[in-house]
Amino acid sequence: MRPVLCLMANELFGEITEDAWHAAAAIELFHNFTLIHDDIMDKAPLRRGNPTIHAKYGMTAGILCGDITCIYSYRELAKVRNVLPLVLQIFNKTGIEVCEGQQLDMDFESRNDVSIDEYIHMITLKTSVLLACSLKIGGLLGGATEGNANKLYEFGKNLGIAFQLQDDYLDAFGATDKLGKQQGGDIKANKKTYLHLKAWETASAFQRQGINEWLQNDSEEKVPAMLNLFGETGADVACREAVNLYSQKAFESLEDVAVISKRKHALHELASYLLQRDK
Amino acid sequence: MRPVLCLMANELFGEITEDAWHAAAAIELFHNFTLIHDDIMDKAPLRRGNPTIHAKYGMTAGILCGDITCIYSYRELAKVRNVLPLVLQIFNKTGIEVCEGQQLDMDFESRNDVSIDEYIHMITLKTSVLLACSLKIGGLLGGATEGNANKLYEFGKNLGIAFQLQDDYLDAFGATDKLGKQQGGDIKANKKTYLHLKAWETASAFQRQGINEWLQNDSEEKVPAMLNLFGETGADVACREAVNLYSQKAFESLEDVAVISKRKHALHELASYLLQRDK
Repeated sequence: MRPVLCLMANELFGEITEDAWHAAAAIELFHNFTLIHDDIMDKAPLRRGNPTIHAKYGMTAGILCGDITCIYSYRELAKVRNVLPLVLQIFNKTGIEVCEGQQLDMDFESRNDVSIDEYIHMITLKTSVLLACSLKIGGLLGGATEGNANKLYEFGKNLGIAFQLQDDYLDAFGATDKLGKQQGGDIKANKKTYLHLKAWETASAFQRQGINEWLQNDSEEKVPAMLNLFGETGADVACREAVNLYSQKAFESLEDVAVISKRKHALHELASYLLQRDK
Repeated sequence: MRPVLCLMANELFGEITEDAWHAAAAIELFHNFTLIHDDIMDKAPLRRGNPTIHAKYGMTAGILCGDITCIYSYRELAKVRNVLPLVLQIFNKTGIEVCEGQQLDMDFESRNDVSIDEYIHMITLKTSVLLACSLKIGGLLGGATEGNANKLYEFGKNLGIAFQLQDDYLDAFGATDKLGKQQGGDIKANKKTYLHLKAWETASAFQRQGINEWLQNDSEEKVPAMLNLFGETGADVACREAVNLYSQKAFESLEDVAVISKRKHALHELASYLLQRDK
């Protein structure tokens, strides 16, 4: 997704450049670097249906494989010929934010007082800024003005937030066959998703007691019971509304990019598809 | 040491540039990134007398702290204004080699057939190329020709090898008060240093049996017994000879750098000091 966004942002302004291909590859490598290290931290046994690197080759190889993939991403980025210092600056800033987002995500696991604002901040750093960076760099390499590049950044950032919140929603309420993963995985893992945090925020004392009890409980009724609590507290509706809010912000930013609408059509289509919205 | 080498290499050719300061900082940050991750892989509790990051804040923080330090190093490097693409290319190549060297070092732990050549290759990647890179980049930013920059690279590479072999030697035969660490630490940890590998290579069947027995033994006699075996097999002499060989190569490369000798004096002094040789 990230390299495609980079190339499509370039295409808004002109023919795809050699530079944009390098930047797209760099961003994809960087993303994979973070996945390799995240999987170690999450003790994840599988990624894309295959054993994770640390699970197959050990933690040492996992750390080093991530490290070298990070350097590979810079090796690819260093091939960019135009506005390299600017591209590096955006890329570095984003990389630092992604690491900070991952640290926040880890910190949240052991905290019981995470606010919705903090959660949005965390997913913005962990997920959205790299989408935003892909679009901004792609735009700049296509010849965008700084103003247009920043609008693309805002588009990507809000798209990323909407996408992550959609993901939280579908993990709980999506049909298993469409997801390609088990329904309620986040609930089973006690993950503090938007739904969980929102339910907690609005829950009565009695409902909070229920949430706390289900957190300790691993029986089969856990998923349906938590889904029920998400409904009772209105967290499900709030989550859909938040998806819509950030989607809307995203499309408004795309709207503001000063190129003819026809050129933006493909990017609009892709975003709509990602958000599984009807056009 | 690395940033100082970078700045001194710059000074061979002209006034220290702003660029060289950024490169020097980037190299030091990169080195620290590798130390943070190496300490996780080595399960090291202490670094420079203080608790390691993973020991103090957990593995997740250790991995992320290393990752972000790596990106910080690129953020610093991106401030270089002259020949940035060339500097990035050298830096990336070196970074990849350092990771490969660390993986080899880890692989060697579970191998019993590591040759001296393989060991030299490993320490070249793990330790020497970053010294070499510091000097080459410093030189280039000071205005060195490619030829002179490559001579500085060779100087740093051989200096690094000599330094590491000296380190192996001193860990075994140095006086404890001068080292600032316990004598025979490598022996106690069954580390496959130059001394160990050379002793094994030249040992008789009987001596090899002795080495194997001491590897299993953690008694107080282990260190003196292994030191004795290093002497009997001539590994101690071979190690000192190897230090001299690589030192000589290093000084020859420095000699070949085409600037007046007076300018090279400080770098020569520093190298001599690092190798603890009399002038």
